[in-house]
Amino acid sequence: MRSQTTALILSHFREHGTATRSDVSAALGLHAKTVANAINTLRDNGLLVPAGRRKSDAGRRQELFSINGSHGNYMGLDLGATHIIGILVDANCSVLDRVVFDIRPGLGVEIIVSQLKSIARRLAASSQRTAVIRGAGVCVPGFVDPRSGMSIVAENIVGWRNVHLREILAADTTAPLFVEDSSRALGVAERWVGSVRHASDFMVLDIGYGVGMAIYTGGELYGGTNHKSGEIGHTVVVPDGGVCACGKRGCLETVASGRAIALDARAAAREGRSSILMDLAQGDVDTISAADVSVAANMGDPLAGELLRAAGGYIGIALANAVNLLNPSHVVLGGGLTNAGAILLDSVSEALSLHTMTEIFKELQLSVSGLGVDGSAIGSAMLAMLSASLPTD
Amino acid sequence: MRSQTTALILSHFREHGTATRSDVSAALGLHAKTVANAINTLRDNGLLVPAGRRKSDAGRRQELFSINGSHGNYMGLDLGATHIIGILVDANCSVLDRVVFDIRPGLGVEIIVSQLKSIARRLAASSQRTAVIRGAGVCVPGFVDPRSGMSIVAENIVGWRNVHLREILAADTTAPLFVEDSSRALGVAERWVGSVRHASDFMVLDIGYGVGMAIYTGGELYGGTNHKSGEIGHTVVVPDGGVCACGKRGCLETVASGRAIALDARAAAREGRSSILMDLAQGDVDTISAADVSVAANMGDPLAGELLRAAGGYIGIALANAVNLLNPSHVVLGGGLTNAGAILLDSVSEALSLHTMTEIFKELQLSVSGLGVDGSAIGSAMLAMLSASLPTD
Repeated sequence: MRSQTTALILSHFREHGTATRSDVSAALGLHAKTVANAINTLRDNGLLVPAGRRKSDAGRRQELFSINGSHGNYMGLDLGATHIIGILVDANCSVLDRVVFDIRPGLGVEIIVSQLKSIARRLAASSQRTAVIRGAGVCVPGFVDPRSGMSIVAENIVGWRNVHLREILAADTTAPLFVEDSSRALGVAERWVGSVRHASDFMVLDIGYGVGMAIYTGGELYGGTNHKSGEIGHTVVVPDGGVCACGKRGCLETVASGRAIALDARAAAREGRSSILMDLAQGDVDTISAADVSVAANMGDPLAGELLRAAGGYIGIALANAVNLLNPSHVVLGGGLTNAGAILLDSVSEALSLHTMTEIFKELQLSVSGLGVDGSAIGSAMLAMLSASLPTD
Repeated sequence: MRSQTTALILSHFREHGTATRSDVSAALGLHAKTVANAINTLRDNGLLVPAGRRKSDAGRRQELFSINGSHGNYMGLDLGATHIIGILVDANCSVLDRVVFDIRPGLGVEIIVSQLKSIARRLAASSQRTAVIRGAGVCVPGFVDPRSGMSIVAENIVGWRNVHLREILAADTTAPLFVEDSSRALGVAERWVGSVRHASDFMVLDIGYGVGMAIYTGGELYGGTNHKSGEIGHTVVVPDGGVCACGKRGCLETVASGRAIALDARAAAREGRSSILMDLAQGDVDTISAADVSVAANMGDPLAGELLRAAGGYIGIALANAVNLLNPSHVVLGGGLTNAGAILLDSVSEALSLHTMTEIFKELQLSVSGLGVDGSAIGSAMLAMLSASLPTD
């Protein structure tokens, strides 16, 4: 069964509460048999429960179903270069608990892992008040191997290589654990509870400390041949430019990422080019972050505004290249840096319109994620729920 | 039924002559039922015929099948900026006839259409010697609407807009007519009779007068939301660069395409920088083509070599961006400009390795199409054959 079908059906129940098989079939334009099979599987797996009967126009009494909110909870952990966000959701995708831990640049792998475990334990304890945890997802930037549950490399976390997340978290949550790339996890969240539920071919751009992308083709998340797709952060935007964390030159991430913006801001602050940034950093230039640059820009700091606009311009070029290549119906802009607001987003959108072929751009819908910084954590939990919703074959 | 299954099964029969259902199932690693269904459909549609029986190890007599070479022929027409290539193939994909017409730059739409019709008639007449034509495909660069059979725009053919190819060719071939983009047609040919028969996630780069790409995800040709995917020729490689035929600035096609190479070569020849090119053009600078540049480069002309190397470098950057985004298992380089040989291809490959993330590049297989200039025409015929091979539902 295609995961798109299941995701659409669960979304329908989330929006409408109760529904019959024919309600779902009519609303989603899916074959009656496809819907019946998917609903049977969801009922067998405990995610849907019978909710009485309703007379149809033809006088037959049809079974109603609804989501079984107390069936189980799902944990989502988003381990990024600057934070760990843990959330606990129920089967209705309502957030029951949330824990955040800020990572200072250069923090050791052991401490990060220890914090991750501690957050997982805290959410597991919190879940005991409502329901068992049926599944957990953890996402990290960079390359992952979902089969082994391994994080292979996250270039933006110093020393992070071959971290066996499934093994590490086994003691802290006994639920099945899924490992995914952060940007793809954000894509999953947008597909399940975001704005692209009914789209088949779309992209979710994840602008944070690094820049990544989730790509959906034919309604399914596209992983690539070795689960390494979506590396838009390594689009060449400055030929012969500076060296990137990946070892190549001129990548988007060298000029337009949370990391690049922070580094450029620190350099500028050192030269005395922004008093607001110096105030925000309380004089300690090395702690200036992209978030500080966003704050400064929104306070009217010209240098900070310039940095965000320049970054947005580069992001728009890389995005235009991807849009020209894949002709998606929707692009969603998400990730922590979207908090910078219009200053950044307008320049992304301007560059996108400037460099995307006219015929492709005019059919494209561009939007900003409504999931905020929790998007990847929510998507990680959704991954676990999605897996629990599909038939085991 | 997925077209990948049908394509793989037909390829198996092409390679092995006769085979039983279990031969095919074992060779391709497909479920027995999937293979049985596909073979039944192919037999019902007349593409496969019974070819006797063979005793299995268990002593049962199993049905053999083979391709019905005389069932019907397929016509493929490739209308490019510089040529029309028409081919006629039988169900074994053997080429029965081939017609080529060179298009001079600036030739009017009416004359081109008239030549296209005349080639279709010639191939239809030629087919009468062997079998009926069961289907025809025609490909053009740019945006097409396969449903209506319309070529919407081909920027590299002056004045070419909203040309209703299906209607135009209706009188010249009564077979069902399929319209596709040239680069996607090349991808279909590579998938069916080329080097990527067993790959699921791959790209075929079509380097010709323009530059386009066929993208396969999950074993299926990816069209995009409005059938406009694959526009890698409009990747931004020169920020604030020259104006492209598409109206945008700095696109790959402005610096690395048959068109760009020819224009650069003419400018250089005018400045007296290449005597070999002047000789090839017999003094008429405006007729210098990218093919002339290839010939000159292979004769050791330094300027021509420099033009091809520079173009290859840009193509490699755009290709690296696409590979980083999609993590394909294979990239095939095809299209007319690959005739330029090692001078161009080595620089594509060098730039690709320089700009693709190390972990992605080391798992990538790069090859050059063996189909030559006929690739898109063959793919157009294959599209028609593929459609005749699938169940009508």
